[in-house]
Amino acid sequence: MIQVAQASQLTLYDVEISGTMGFSTATLLISCPDQQGLVAKIASFIYTNGGNIIHADQHRDEAAGLFLSRIEWQLEGFALPPSQIETAFSAIAQPLGASWQLRFSETMPRIAIWVSRQNHCLLDLLWRHQAGELLCKIPLIISNHPDLEAIADQFGIDYHHLPTRKNTRQAHEAKQLALLQKYKIDLVVLAKYMQILSPDFVRQFSQVINIHHSFLPAFVGANPYHRAYERGVKIIGATAHYVTSDLDAGPIIEQDVVQISHRDQVSDLIRKGKDLERMVLARAVRLHLQNRILVYGNRTVVFA
Amino acid sequence: MIQVAQASQLTLYDVEISGTMGFSTATLLISCPDQQGLVAKIASFIYTNGGNIIHADQHRDEAAGLFLSRIEWQLEGFALPPSQIETAFSAIAQPLGASWQLRFSETMPRIAIWVSRQNHCLLDLLWRHQAGELLCKIPLIISNHPDLEAIADQFGIDYHHLPTRKNTRQAHEAKQLALLQKYKIDLVVLAKYMQILSPDFVRQFSQVINIHHSFLPAFVGANPYHRAYERGVKIIGATAHYVTSDLDAGPIIEQDVVQISHRDQVSDLIRKGKDLERMVLARAVRLHLQNRILVYGNRTVVFA
Amino acid sequence: MIQVAQASQLTLYDVEISGTMGFSTATLLISCPDQQGLVAKIASFIYTNGGNIIHADQHRDEAAGLFLSRIEWQLEGFALPPSQIETAFSAIAQPLGASWQLRFSETMPRIAIWVSRQNHCLLDLLWRHQAGELLCKIPLIISNHPDLEAIADQFGIDYHHLPTRKNTRQAHEAKQLALLQKYKIDLVVLAKYMQILSPDFVRQFSQVINIHHSFLPAFVGANPYHRAYERGVKIIGATAHYVTSDLDAGPIIEQDVVQISHRDQVSDLIRKGKDLERMVLARAVRLHLQNRILVYGNRTVVFA
Amino acid sequence: MIQVAQASQLTLYDVEISGTMGFSTATLLISCPDQQGLVAKIASFIYTNGGNIIHADQHRDEAAGLFLSRIEWQLEGFALPPSQIETAFSAIAQPLGASWQLRFSETMPRIAIWVSRQNHCLLDLLWRHQAGELLCKIPLIISNHPDLEAIADQFGIDYHHLPTRKNTRQAHEAKQLALLQKYKIDLVVLAKYMQILSPDFVRQFSQVINIHHSFLPAFVGANPYHRAYERGVKIIGATAHYVTSDLDAGPIIEQDVVQISHRDQVSDLIRKGKDLERMVLARAVRLHLQNRILVYGNRTVVFA
Repeated sequence: MIQVAQASQLTLYDVEISGTMGFSTATLLISCPDQQGLVAKIASFIYTNGGNIIHADQHRDEAAGLFLSRIEWQLEGFALPPSQIETAFSAIAQPLGASWQLRFSETMPRIAIWVSRQNHCLLDLLWRHQAGELLCKIPLIISNHPDLEAIADQFGIDYHHLPTRKNTRQAHEAKQLALLQKYKIDLVVLAKYMQILSPDFVRQFSQVINIHHSFLPAFVGANPYHRAYERGVKIIGATAHYVTSDLDAGPIIEQDVVQISHRDQVSDLIRKGKDLERMVLARAVRLHLQNRILVYGNRTVVFA
Repeated sequence: MIQVAQASQLTLYDVEISGTMGFSTATLLISCPDQQGLVAKIASFIYTNGGNIIHADQHRDEAAGLFLSRIEWQLEGFALPPSQIETAFSAIAQPLGASWQLRFSETMPRIAIWVSRQNHCLLDLLWRHQAGELLCKIPLIISNHPDLEAIADQFGIDYHHLPTRKNTRQAHEAKQLALLQKYKIDLVVLAKYMQILSPDFVRQFSQVINIHHSFLPAFVGANPYHRAYERGVKIIGATAHYVTSDLDAGPIIEQDVVQISHRDQVSDLIRKGKDLERMVLARAVRLHLQNRILVYGNRTVVFA
Repeated sequence: MIQVAQASQLTLYDVEISGTMGFSTATLLISCPDQQGLVAKIASFIYTNGGNIIHADQHRDEAAGLFLSRIEWQLEGFALPPSQIETAFSAIAQPLGASWQLRFSETMPRIAIWVSRQNHCLLDLLWRHQAGELLCKIPLIISNHPDLEAIADQFGIDYHHLPTRKNTRQAHEAKQLALLQKYKIDLVVLAKYMQILSPDFVRQFSQVINIHHSFLPAFVGANPYHRAYERGVKIIGATAHYVTSDLDAGPIIEQDVVQISHRDQVSDLIRKGKDLERMVLARAVRLHLQNRILVYGNRTVVFA
Repeated sequence: MIQVAQASQLTLYDVEISGTMGFSTATLLISCPDQQGLVAKIASFIYTNGGNIIHADQHRDEAAGLFLSRIEWQLEGFALPPSQIETAFSAIAQPLGASWQLRFSETMPRIAIWVSRQNHCLLDLLWRHQAGELLCKIPLIISNHPDLEAIADQFGIDYHHLPTRKNTRQAHEAKQLALLQKYKIDLVVLAKYMQILSPDFVRQFSQVINIHHSFLPAFVGANPYHRAYERGVKIIGATAHYVTSDLDAGPIIEQDVVQISHRDQVSDLIRKGKDLERMVLARAVRLHLQNRILVYGNRTVVFA
């Protein structure tokens, strides 16, 4: 059982790369119509309750008249227990007309990774999880192919093979949703899952991150590397985004690119693209897990 | 007269950055159906005539069954005078079914720069020309606006203001073509010229490089920065390409990108884009002037 | 007088790229020992005086136990006139043990650009200034060579040629300091000024940004491009930093790199480096002018 | 046995990403004093023996007066059997005063990977090997720690734990050399092996690629990430290079960088650096395996 062995061996490194600060925190992600006194009101709420702010960042979208902010504070010494913060903060948030989420570092999000036949994004996420880069639990892998079950076994993760068949989409998605519910999944990561989710599915489960193998909005849809080669581009990219009912058009989280030349064949684009895909997807998932992303309209604010 | 003063002052630097090697060369750009012995035949032609090859690079497009090559050699000591090389090489090229061009470093290409109202690409090209980075003559600037005439005056370049009016496109392009002929122009550089050339124009004058302010094929057409902002992309780009009758779809020479964040407004995208545009356009023009680009189909081979 | 002509022509673009938001603001840059309530206290000071915060960002250096923040707010409707804000805020800052600076968007910083013989960074800064990217006044250029006077003339800027001679350093720097005082200079930009400032000079005038033609700390000192070529590196860089008495070791503001290959000669490194240098220097100067940089120890926090 | 399962499942993808062209080739890497007719002589040798050149690239180092070239041709239909090519080509190479190597795509190089306790570079190389990106055999892993044995087991590779102790360096290296001989190793890859090889070792086995966790020549030696943090750099890098007797000063093959900000702690530098390290090392090993690297003096020519 390699993962156990490594966990103990890497204790030394874990501390360095854990991404935690060794103490419990609460994180508030909030957006509301822009108005005077927002920072003062929120910061005062935390201060008067004895909280120490360790990260505060804000953004104003002037065109939208919107204020967006991320505030993280230490829970040690905070006057309110976690279970009461939500109610207490409501008194402040409601008059502001705010949308907001409250997250606690103690609560580990539960992730399901969905794959088809390619293993590079899956392996990369599992390695990073093992190395302490992704603070979450990964109890479930779903695939429309049986190919990657051995990897799931190796990491001790349940693998559910749900083959896709014609005219059974609704039943298929019902099974998927049942699994997400059974495993109490907070976030689905499509790690090269080569099927399209229905608008209906997305309505029922909206926390889904996808990696698209192109520099969106170029080459929306299928076979982007072949089409990039045919167009003769000199750079290819990859895009991690939240999934919406409109294919490949959801809010973009992260993008990156790599240079190519006339010497690169489609197979080289695929090879280089694989490295891009796993890097970009991993960064997006990490940002999400750190509660650094606020979505509004079709845009993201990334408090990095 | 700033340019004269600088020319003498910068002698020291000119040597370093001229891009010439201090001797005359011939450059052959050739493409033909792939077959055995191509390199041997071409290299032997040069060797038996006493030429010293200083750069030889080749590419095979396996799918297209095409061999493409760039070979540059010193003319000093070469048995054939430049005027006879073309005829002599024909004897070798014809049996190969080759398309080829022969260029001599002694012949300075003549460039016309076309602009509208933005000056950043124009200034950048003129500064690089003055600094010795672009080995060419720039006798002509054409614009559909009068705005940038002062810059032309400053650099001692003729400026022709040809305003665009409705229903006069044919006459307008006829005037442009007449100017290109009068000034013996080899290459037109569209340095933020915000008008579309007609397919008819491109048929009559095909050596045209354009800078498109997006990472093609994303955001083809107008207002790419506004549309990039609306899409919420995290990276913007610029693309230099040869102009064909199909708008924004010509062979790509060079692309580059820059990261943006939610803090960047449309005005920031425009500002960052300007830097991209002038860098990417300047690199493309330099590659063209060094005879490093071979176009086939809708693709380029860049022997860099 | 090209700059006047352009100023009027570019009105349209200026709005887009000015970097101002069309209203007056105050910006506070503050650092102090980390403690509870900092954000609340500062934000409440602004709120209770009727200010609307348009940007607030903070950073904690845990190792140093330091809180660092940048807060910008609109002055329209603010209860205190600018002249009284400093005194009023002192009452809050002093108990916190804070170092802080207050800047007003209405006050245009005055820049002196120092050059030697190379013109690329100077021209780039002047173009950007003209295009509205750098909100400042540039009344003075100082050089140890006469070469670039024509550029100063063209842009209507005073040019002082102070040649360097042996054994006259003290007198030389006295002249420089007198000029800075006479022109009421707030910031000196060393735009390829190839002389070293004495520790004594830096003590007397500390606001100096330099561009170093390497990826510091590699190739500290002279001839970095030659040394980079000899070392056979595959990437070169440029670094903008504040000048301290320790040569090339001051706080780094901005760095960037470009790939090179075995085909690049020293002259190519110099050419590519020139593009890097002007981009990196321009970005650093812009960040400084927007009051986005906080220096502490030998580090910078860049609130970008 | 995951690797077996994957091998069969990935057949489809293997074809796309194998990097082979489906036929046997010979590759010549040659350097010699620059002189006329070099390309012609070498190309004619191949042509007259019926070979089809599929890649030919050359470089001239003018300062060194050196010609360097890489030529790859198909062996199918070639008049000489592989075993006789060397002798036949000697007749051409010797009069030219050339150094040269001949490699055959049929011969799979044998690699030993050396590690200490960190697993990211090792896993990355093994995964790429499994995915068909690295055409070689990996029969041996050597480590001065027992930690990563489980990974070796998983991939079916022999793992030799040779702990380092004081005053036993000579004996230690003798054991290492014996293993390299026993396993017929062609190339050693130091994948975060945190020990220094003695000059004596390098003399006896010179084909060694190392990954250095910094942008050499910055931060030569130990703890580069801590020192990069202390220096306040805005970019960190990684460097793959051949190992020479002079620590961290060998010929550079590949470098890459990533941006960092004031928000990045040492642990973030280490995390970001790990991604850089595995990418840069993998690219360098792939280039080596494709016989694309020519070393001369302390420099590399990378025919990419």
